[in-house]
Amino acid sequence: MEPIEKQIRTLTDRILADYGKGRYIDRETIFTRPDKDVVEDILEKLQKLIYPGFFKAQSYRYFTLENCTSTLVEDILYNLGRQISLTLRYNGLYADSTDAEIKEKADALSLAFLQRIPHIREYIETDLMAEFEGDPAAHSKDMIIISYPGLYAIMVYRIAHELVLLDVPMIPRMMTEIAHSKTGIDINPGATIGKHFFIDHGTGIVIGETTEIGENVKIYQGVTLGALSTRKGQMLAGRKRHPTIEDNVTIYSGASILGGETVIGKNAVIGANAFITSSIPAGAKVSIKNQEYSVRYDEKFETPKELDDTSWFYVI
Amino acid sequence: MEPIEKQIRTLTDRILADYGKGRYIDRETIFTRPDKDVVEDILEKLQKLIYPGFFKAQSYRYFTLENCTSTLVEDILYNLGRQISLTLRYNGLYADSTDAEIKEKADALSLAFLQRIPHIREYIETDLMAEFEGDPAAHSKDMIIISYPGLYAIMVYRIAHELVLLDVPMIPRMMTEIAHSKTGIDINPGATIGKHFFIDHGTGIVIGETTEIGENVKIYQGVTLGALSTRKGQMLAGRKRHPTIEDNVTIYSGASILGGETVIGKNAVIGANAFITSSIPAGAKVSIKNQEYSVRYDEKFETPKELDDTSWFYVI
Amino acid sequence: MEPIEKQIRTLTDRILADYGKGRYIDRETIFTRPDKDVVEDILEKLQKLIYPGFFKAQSYRYFTLENCTSTLVEDILYNLGRQISLTLRYNGLYADSTDAEIKEKADALSLAFLQRIPHIREYIETDLMAEFEGDPAAHSKDMIIISYPGLYAIMVYRIAHELVLLDVPMIPRMMTEIAHSKTGIDINPGATIGKHFFIDHGTGIVIGETTEIGENVKIYQGVTLGALSTRKGQMLAGRKRHPTIEDNVTIYSGASILGGETVIGKNAVIGANAFITSSIPAGAKVSIKNQEYSVRYDEKFETPKELDDTSWFYVI
Repeated sequence: MEPIEKQIRTLTDRILADYGKGRYIDRETIFTRPDKDVVEDILEKLQKLIYPGFFKAQSYRYFTLENCTSTLVEDILYNLGRQISLTLRYNGLYADSTDAEIKEKADALSLAFLQRIPHIREYIETDLMAEFEGDPAAHSKDMIIISYPGLYAIMVYRIAHELVLLDVPMIPRMMTEIAHSKTGIDINPGATIGKHFFIDHGTGIVIGETTEIGENVKIYQGVTLGALSTRKGQMLAGRKRHPTIEDNVTIYSGASILGGETVIGKNAVIGANAFITSSIPAGAKVSIKNQEYSVRYDEKFETPKELDDTSWFYVI
Repeated sequence: MEPIEKQIRTLTDRILADYGKGRYIDRETIFTRPDKDVVEDILEKLQKLIYPGFFKAQSYRYFTLENCTSTLVEDILYNLGRQISLTLRYNGLYADSTDAEIKEKADALSLAFLQRIPHIREYIETDLMAEFEGDPAAHSKDMIIISYPGLYAIMVYRIAHELVLLDVPMIPRMMTEIAHSKTGIDINPGATIGKHFFIDHGTGIVIGETTEIGENVKIYQGVTLGALSTRKGQMLAGRKRHPTIEDNVTIYSGASILGGETVIGKNAVIGANAFITSSIPAGAKVSIKNQEYSVRYDEKFETPKELDDTSWFYVI
Repeated sequence: MEPIEKQIRTLTDRILADYGKGRYIDRETIFTRPDKDVVEDILEKLQKLIYPGFFKAQSYRYFTLENCTSTLVEDILYNLGRQISLTLRYNGLYADSTDAEIKEKADALSLAFLQRIPHIREYIETDLMAEFEGDPAAHSKDMIIISYPGLYAIMVYRIAHELVLLDVPMIPRMMTEIAHSKTGIDINPGATIGKHFFIDHGTGIVIGETTEIGENVKIYQGVTLGALSTRKGQMLAGRKRHPTIEDNVTIYSGASILGGETVIGKNAVIGANAFITSSIPAGAKVSIKNQEYSVRYDEKFETPKELDDTSWFYVI
């Protein structure tokens, strides 16, 4: 083989040549996009700020709560402001602004966001209560705060949604994708969700960008609140494509509710695996009629005959 | 804008005032709850202890296996004991105990748990064999130990379940939620699961707190072993709400089996996407009868007409 | 209680005795398997190499793109070569080779892989375009590169698949399981997938080892491309067990397509939750016929009567 220096030189040249093809992924600009690790760190600090007694802050034992809070506030204010400034060139509104102007706008947005912390906490208290009341396997509220994926995903959504309301680009979706990765729960930060929101288990839940959810709604694992058709892709951007779920609705596992004009009325209950593409009136309880099953008996378990017969049952 | 110091001061005061509202999330006590990072670290060390040749221990190259094992044992004994002591105030039994008494009890529990390691390993060897025998895409047993989410989630469940049997609060569920986050597999540590347990792919699996599973059971992605109704919430705590699955049962992907009185008899096979809310006799093979489909042909792919016609198929 | 030293000694002896039982998990050899943390680090560096402008490389601000690229190339070449050398004893082909021969072979494979980077990038550019065009909630292509689980899982698959083509054992599956853990998307690295591949949301997707997918295919959350029967386990290893999906096919959420002889023809559309076990002709659009639902109204929400009546709807 060639000497290693030569190989590295040749490979590097080959890859640099590939960067020169002018495609989207070939952009070589020095990194000026928000940093996922920093955004994740901001989320961790916000969690400490939201639940002052629950997540250990660095030096928590040496400082008073007041000092600890002010340290967290300063840290988030600075880092979030810095990440926002990296995104502001993206929405086109600040194309003509100087770096100093962008920094000032970003700091103002970071500040405006932090002023919403009491508002966010007001909602999260109600979500915590909903989680505890709805789950007989929840032995304590502390347990839910420390460990439950549902409450974590809702907290990240509530944080991200405030940033959407402030027109901060990119960072809200980065935040909810961090929660999606940790929990399997995919809530678009553009969705609107009322108080006392309950999610159990959660893996596989998808809540689309233009979904509107009222108060006291319960959702179980594998539920999709989605669009009726996304085949038009970008042509549909901005339109209401996802359903409206009114107060006190319960949606059991695996159900799909689709379409921007679909409204699930107050107090309705949607049974597991239901597939809903039109509106459901208030108070209705919808469930799939008993499906027909074929049942066969085979006393000889694991015989070759049985192994070869796959016609009657489906296996994945 | 105001000077930054002033802004931080104002924000801090605003948030401190919000902490004073007396709600559950307002608790300001210095952190005395178990720490998720420490619990995750304990799980990593337990994995090294369970598979001595498979996960690199710090200094593994310099120490003998004996020294390495004793170092791991000491580390886990101390850290688990410390985390347990943080939780013992929670179950109410130790309300009158001194800190020293709680420490002693916690250390005894940590020790009792570590004495169960050979028992846990006895089960995990059988789970490994079940994973290998059941999955034609598994090229080696080493691969399963190092990489497969199914075996990892089962290992964490088996560890956490021993802690449940010792009445350790909080930590078992923290452990299984760590596994849930990494694998999408949500096994409540209270469930009872026999030897030779097989999980494939696994994402979306939910196994509830009072589920009982026999030996040699196979479960695929998206299966729920759940409760028939959780709308009563905390009123149902403690009752058997989840099904019993007897020996040699296979449950294919997406199936839901619900209810505390539902029993799936020995050797039964539950087909994919089946929805079972009553008992199934031993040896039965249940599958959804072929569903009706509508099929339409459209030779002109991606025409505007076709894009506007969403009446006959559902899209998410 | 006994003094702590004595307890640790006793526990260690107990566990060492358990290691002596000769089972698979009892192997005590010094660690010679690939290391998940190193493999994850290699994936992070490959991501920087694939998108030069998008992920901050250490010292990126001080070096030119050329220096930065050559540093990444050297790092990946060395570390991937080292991990490959740890795996080559596994496939039996190098049983008689010396360590030096294995190192040389491993370095050659690492080099051969890196020469495929331009090929991988050619595909990923098309996947990025497919993600952007297909998702009305995608506000920018940068956002997709930085945050979307679909594109991340596809990138990791494309990297891992090149290593499969070079017959590198273990590492490809380790890579796709890292992506599975982060995204809930389980793509076996042995699958063949054409350009312009689109995945939305993604949680719960399973794509089996012998699946073949054409160009311009769209897949949504919860889709399984699986085997008709895996009850024969290892007896099926190596056979084509998973379906073939031709160009321009769309498969909506929750659909399952099973079997090695199942072919979904060009331009076909498979509706949500469909369960397909035989071939579908080109241009066909398949959807479940409207399911029957039972609907009941109950104006008195949350009355005790209603809470006790679970006969008509299923709850998980």
